[in-house]
Amino acid sequence: MEVSLRFKPVRCATLGEPQIRSPLRRSRVPGDGCPFKSDDQWVPHDAVLTLGPEGPAEQYLFEHAGPRDRIFFDPQKTTAAVVTCGGLCPGLNDVIRSLFFELHFNYGIQRVWGIRNGFLGLNPERGPKPIELTTDFVADIHWQGGTALGTSRGPQEVSMMVDTLQSLGVNLFFCVGGDGTQRGAHAIGEEIARRRLPMSVIGIPKTIDNDIPYCDRTFGLVTAVEKARDVVVQAHTEAKAAVRGIGLVKLMGREAGFIACGATIASQEVNFTLIPEVPFELHGERGLLAALRRRMADRHHAVIAVAEGAGQSFFADLPVSYDASGNKKHHDIGPYLKQEIRRYFQEMNEGVDIKYIDPSYIIRSAPANSEDRLLCNQLARNAAHAAMAGKTDLLVCAKNGTYMHVPIMMAVAEKQKVDPRGELWASVLASTGQSLYFG
Amino acid sequence: MEVSLRFKPVRCATLGEPQIRSPLRRSRVPGDGCPFKSDDQWVPHDAVLTLGPEGPAEQYLFEHAGPRDRIFFDPQKTTAAVVTCGGLCPGLNDVIRSLFFELHFNYGIQRVWGIRNGFLGLNPERGPKPIELTTDFVADIHWQGGTALGTSRGPQEVSMMVDTLQSLGVNLFFCVGGDGTQRGAHAIGEEIARRRLPMSVIGIPKTIDNDIPYCDRTFGLVTAVEKARDVVVQAHTEAKAAVRGIGLVKLMGREAGFIACGATIASQEVNFTLIPEVPFELHGERGLLAALRRRMADRHHAVIAVAEGAGQSFFADLPVSYDASGNKKHHDIGPYLKQEIRRYFQEMNEGVDIKYIDPSYIIRSAPANSEDRLLCNQLARNAAHAAMAGKTDLLVCAKNGTYMHVPIMMAVAEKQKVDPRGELWASVLASTGQSLYFG
Amino acid sequence: MEVSLRFKPVRCATLGEPQIRSPLRRSRVPGDGCPFKSDDQWVPHDAVLTLGPEGPAEQYLFEHAGPRDRIFFDPQKTTAAVVTCGGLCPGLNDVIRSLFFELHFNYGIQRVWGIRNGFLGLNPERGPKPIELTTDFVADIHWQGGTALGTSRGPQEVSMMVDTLQSLGVNLFFCVGGDGTQRGAHAIGEEIARRRLPMSVIGIPKTIDNDIPYCDRTFGLVTAVEKARDVVVQAHTEAKAAVRGIGLVKLMGREAGFIACGATIASQEVNFTLIPEVPFELHGERGLLAALRRRMADRHHAVIAVAEGAGQSFFADLPVSYDASGNKKHHDIGPYLKQEIRRYFQEMNEGVDIKYIDPSYIIRSAPANSEDRLLCNQLARNAAHAAMAGKTDLLVCAKNGTYMHVPIMMAVAEKQKVDPRGELWASVLASTGQSLYFG
Amino acid sequence: MEVSLRFKPVRCATLGEPQIRSPLRRSRVPGDGCPFKSDDQWVPHDAVLTLGPEGPAEQYLFEHAGPRDRIFFDPQKTTAAVVTCGGLCPGLNDVIRSLFFELHFNYGIQRVWGIRNGFLGLNPERGPKPIELTTDFVADIHWQGGTALGTSRGPQEVSMMVDTLQSLGVNLFFCVGGDGTQRGAHAIGEEIARRRLPMSVIGIPKTIDNDIPYCDRTFGLVTAVEKARDVVVQAHTEAKAAVRGIGLVKLMGREAGFIACGATIASQEVNFTLIPEVPFELHGERGLLAALRRRMADRHHAVIAVAEGAGQSFFADLPVSYDASGNKKHHDIGPYLKQEIRRYFQEMNEGVDIKYIDPSYIIRSAPANSEDRLLCNQLARNAAHAAMAGKTDLLVCAKNGTYMHVPIMMAVAEKQKVDPRGELWASVLASTGQSLYFG
Repeated sequence: MEVSLRFKPVRCATLGEPQIRSPLRRSRVPGDGCPFKSDDQWVPHDAVLTLGPEGPAEQYLFEHAGPRDRIFFDPQKTTAAVVTCGGLCPGLNDVIRSLFFELHFNYGIQRVWGIRNGFLGLNPERGPKPIELTTDFVADIHWQGGTALGTSRGPQEVSMMVDTLQSLGVNLFFCVGGDGTQRGAHAIGEEIARRRLPMSVIGIPKTIDNDIPYCDRTFGLVTAVEKARDVVVQAHTEAKAAVRGIGLVKLMGREAGFIACGATIASQEVNFTLIPEVPFELHGERGLLAALRRRMADRHHAVIAVAEGAGQSFFADLPVSYDASGNKKHHDIGPYLKQEIRRYFQEMNEGVDIKYIDPSYIIRSAPANSEDRLLCNQLARNAAHAAMAGKTDLLVCAKNGTYMHVPIMMAVAEKQKVDPRGELWASVLASTGQSLYFG
Repeated sequence: MEVSLRFKPVRCATLGEPQIRSPLRRSRVPGDGCPFKSDDQWVPHDAVLTLGPEGPAEQYLFEHAGPRDRIFFDPQKTTAAVVTCGGLCPGLNDVIRSLFFELHFNYGIQRVWGIRNGFLGLNPERGPKPIELTTDFVADIHWQGGTALGTSRGPQEVSMMVDTLQSLGVNLFFCVGGDGTQRGAHAIGEEIARRRLPMSVIGIPKTIDNDIPYCDRTFGLVTAVEKARDVVVQAHTEAKAAVRGIGLVKLMGREAGFIACGATIASQEVNFTLIPEVPFELHGERGLLAALRRRMADRHHAVIAVAEGAGQSFFADLPVSYDASGNKKHHDIGPYLKQEIRRYFQEMNEGVDIKYIDPSYIIRSAPANSEDRLLCNQLARNAAHAAMAGKTDLLVCAKNGTYMHVPIMMAVAEKQKVDPRGELWASVLASTGQSLYFG
Repeated sequence: MEVSLRFKPVRCATLGEPQIRSPLRRSRVPGDGCPFKSDDQWVPHDAVLTLGPEGPAEQYLFEHAGPRDRIFFDPQKTTAAVVTCGGLCPGLNDVIRSLFFELHFNYGIQRVWGIRNGFLGLNPERGPKPIELTTDFVADIHWQGGTALGTSRGPQEVSMMVDTLQSLGVNLFFCVGGDGTQRGAHAIGEEIARRRLPMSVIGIPKTIDNDIPYCDRTFGLVTAVEKARDVVVQAHTEAKAAVRGIGLVKLMGREAGFIACGATIASQEVNFTLIPEVPFELHGERGLLAALRRRMADRHHAVIAVAEGAGQSFFADLPVSYDASGNKKHHDIGPYLKQEIRRYFQEMNEGVDIKYIDPSYIIRSAPANSEDRLLCNQLARNAAHAAMAGKTDLLVCAKNGTYMHVPIMMAVAEKQKVDPRGELWASVLASTGQSLYFG
Repeated sequence: MEVSLRFKPVRCATLGEPQIRSPLRRSRVPGDGCPFKSDDQWVPHDAVLTLGPEGPAEQYLFEHAGPRDRIFFDPQKTTAAVVTCGGLCPGLNDVIRSLFFELHFNYGIQRVWGIRNGFLGLNPERGPKPIELTTDFVADIHWQGGTALGTSRGPQEVSMMVDTLQSLGVNLFFCVGGDGTQRGAHAIGEEIARRRLPMSVIGIPKTIDNDIPYCDRTFGLVTAVEKARDVVVQAHTEAKAAVRGIGLVKLMGREAGFIACGATIASQEVNFTLIPEVPFELHGERGLLAALRRRMADRHHAVIAVAEGAGQSFFADLPVSYDASGNKKHHDIGPYLKQEIRRYFQEMNEGVDIKYIDPSYIIRSAPANSEDRLLCNQLARNAAHAAMAGKTDLLVCAKNGTYMHVPIMMAVAEKQKVDPRGELWASVLASTGQSLYFG
């Protein structure tokens, strides 16, 4: 069967023609086959192809990530730097470690700078000095949560950051951070282009919320779901033991409810999962409070998992503010829900015992679990490959079971969200049974 | 850009035209969109598309898994049965539980039989009686390892098994097991077809080794890697504390070394990873023993992770035997390596202190971790969808970040293996540095 | 050497002369020795004997707990009941399970009631009905946190409670709860004595804070320290990664700082441990804030573990309130400290990044760890022995490596506290080094 | 009440009169009380006092451990060394770390040597060089299992070891090890006395089996029980899922079955617990095999936990050998039982499916859990106190909820064992119900 498909290939920026023979050639034993990926290899965006009358829609093709036969930078003359920015996320240390290992041991790069405390470390006046990474420094960091380089929120002046990178002799600059950080990385890339510097800027997307598009899964998510699952189980324990107990857990998820959905399915103990993608009413016959009341009448206890971005419409009248990274600050749905639930049942003259848990720091500061470590390892190594090949201004993303390159500005243009008509949300509904109570 | 691709669509068998309106339509709130997948949706086998001069190769298209708008079985008149076969694997109880939930609560099926102790439970003379699954029975089973239904190895007479299923009134038969089991499921499917029974047979592949093709990941693997990682770390602890200590860990992996590779990357503490896909010599300048000796001279301790199927060539002269499931019995590489290492260093007159660990039961009997639970949930629910739609003789597989149907006989025709030229093995080599010592 | 010691033996109340031969006699195999403890066996209160010039002080002798040769209740005609009251604590289910096993299997008692939701379950009008415990009911409860019987706070009318117990035919009444609960148990015992009922009331002290005197360790403490330790490590991770980060963790401990001390020593990551027993100033040269500032100048990050009862003097001007159990409600030192630290450094014009964690529910709802399970098992079995022997109005306590009986009113008369001159606090100071900064 | 008691005070050896004012005086804030223990403080051996007709038996008094007001060694002129010997045990790194902290930060000792690989590190010809411990070296070692100093089995020549210690200028020598090690420490102490060196030798007993007398609990036991408990649960999972499954777990315990007993009570899933202290027959009506057969007929699955020292009488005819540490080598009861069980049921023509697990390395190489850390901390600090006070040739032991000194030769003269008539074994029998099947 032959099918004609329409594609939009998305070619990432490069610094020039890669003409140096990759040193990886020799390190691939055994077998004499070619470990290299070529620029003719593409990852189609859609894992599913819809044939039928109107034929399949046009879709993006992204560059396949992986080591290239020919590289742009001469390892002997190349210096790298890595920075971690924004809130903590399980796996940061694994990314740092695998980056160092790939660059140092496989490509033979002699100097890898660790920029400390995020972009602040590129501010020579206010920030801490960079440190040179060594095998000793990275040896055991993967067993600890957080980031061995420290982090910070918010941008620094772009020109100054490029000055600092230039003065450190950096050719490969790896930015691990969320969309604010990646916008910063892109701005750095633009300044580099303006100065015509031989410097590659590669982003590794870090969002515990998993809200960066073109990524099936960002590192830290799997660990976060596991930790959140444990907390949900404990909320269930509290709710069941109390007289008309309600366990209320606020989970991370500003724009996307992946952690709340994952924790729901992995625990099978949540009764109401509330995410930003699925609006809900609080009051009225079809509101959460009435639904919760029906559940309490039925079973006498309940667990609610609410993503921090859910129900923001309730605060529509309140002023908007932003954090140092430029993210819109969400109003705190957790305490608000707690207060509204308490008030509602008081008005109904029905006692409830609410246990509210906000485990954010406990989740995000955990060391990566085994599965996230594998992901961090691949992301970091593919980032090294992309940089050495002279590619720039791109993110390395896990997609459809493989890895690909996405131009930074394309990836930060919008947010990835849970599809309310997809199987993930269907699994949540199957597990909570909340549709029954919402009526 | 328009590209013409050659596909081989793989259509699975069906029992007939699905004409009944799915009851899932109403349970998908909120949103008025369509949650259903259609038979026009396909999953291309290759996540990566190679364009360029000679153009992309022909590839398989598999049916996209998911709920269908029209189903074949009337839920009111339908009975299901589920069986778990073969060795333990994390997630069996999650599969049973999610299957029951999807069938009972979402489709409204009233009776779901649990066949006990594998196919033996379909032998009315020798096996235990089936039990009817209930919400109470499955409520907490996902917190425990193993299988609440029990398991066994080996086949039973096909005709007798179909007799039993028929006498139980089964329309949907779910087989959770490895390739031996799935061959049995296929044989049952053939007998059903011969008898023209309205019975769908759906397999959920269970292989902790991850060796079933067309599956990116089978359930239990992620948990197994995590547990194996912990053991590897402990072997490292033992090796480092001893005088010239060698930690030797045998891990599961008869035909494929995915667990050994995963544990290596996730721990970053293995120095030699040995898998079936990458042959190695024991003796001689380029053999493992000489490599190990170089490592010991260099660092005074070492950790070896060996998959059970590695190095089987050393036993070429020994007789071959088979287990009850018809799997070829591997010779035990673990004790053999231990003895050869001991002998070699004795001959060299160099002391070593070998700690041998075989953690198989401890790994496979663990409860599924959070990530495996999500996978089990999707596999089970998609199996229910496939069965209700009247599809049969297929496996539900996770591939390229989504789920698809693969005809049973196609999936059991060969084994999936670690690609010695792929990035997984490259990561192993980067982590172990074993190439240096093999010379 | 012969020494004359002065003792005050503390004999607990009994219902009468135990004249029935214990059925335990036969179940102790192998060996023909006597497993029984006698009323001539005593546990001296002090593990340390100070000889020397003035000689040792007079000390209490408590009854040695354990099975008695002769028992008061005829197992065939005896009914038991168990109730769990107050906040959750790891191990409640282990206590319930071991009590049932000892009473049912070893003593042969046929009926054991589970009173639900604390004393509320003895209120026939408002509370839930009791359930009869069975092997099935208790089989797996020890793998879960919380209490399978439910709990509640606060007392019920004593006469009504005794009516209910009487109507259930209860002879052995086991109360698992804190000092409020045990005062209730004592009141029930008094009412029973007034009515001359053959009913024994035995308390098992439950205080996660470990603040009941005459107990070296109450169940749940070891688990709580372990969970608190994990959270402290995470606070450290957050603090170290941030720019001038301060991790502030509020831990349980209303009157006694055992959990905060334990988590400090077990983590070795706390820099300031604040407990009720050791007053501290906030402001001034010797205050916490100045000490914290010195630490921050020195190391740029800090972790503070504060017990909830610490620093209550700061709220001296605020009104006092009480919870349903009659416990004085503490003002919330956590948010107060956070606010004062923030304010102080703002005034100093020095940035700090404070991460505040309040993990109470997550700690107390955990299942008991292995060590707490052994303790729960012994406490429950010794409670059964005491009750069967006809003893009443007492608590079973772990002391000096063994178990003993303490009259309820003696145990609730005061609180056990961390000794600021003892080795536990010395270990805390050695681990935190806080003395250096307090100056 | 006045009672005359007969005591045998056990005074430990000292190097001379302690005349230096302890520097700990100033570090004990707040409070002006005295933190010091005096030599007039004793720990009576028996926690339980039996009064009655014949009066209490004579008992030992041991020195109370703790800091002394006057010390023997001038911290400025004092050098310490620590060695870890024998098999791994959870907590070794905690002991090393707490020792260093107490000596360095509290007493102000400038130099602490870490002797590497046990006594081998005192052999200048064959062993590795000692390393000087620093804050950096010990900073994170407590998060890892094993010992950062390495270990080895077996003795070295005493005179040579003392030569090495002398050449390193050691005044305080801390030996962490089992009874073989402690005999070595005693021999070193004798040689020191012969040479009239100002050197204190203090032992910290390390036996995961908990078989050193005068110790309620040795470090590592609690962690070992927890790990063993997990394995027992997994054996149960395997046994229950199989067709007539038998889970057989061999646990540590050469002379004493504390780990097997603890794991039994903590899991509540063992059906037969076999320990060295309670002999059993294999064959015959009252033998294990017949008992197991009754259990299998009844419940179709079983779990057996066997301590490695159990059933050694079965090997009475085999030759005896010894390991490098001089411990009698036990014959391996695990595989023997497996083989005998298999043979027996074959003869009975009844199928069984035996899963044998030997988790020794996995248990002993684990990092200490929270409770063991507290114990290690106290043992190490009290060892430092004893040494600084000029005491020598003693072990620091946890007893009756406090800490005391025991002369080395007194502690190694015999083994501590599980009392078959005590409450621990009674709890085991209550949990397993094995008496019923032994008949």
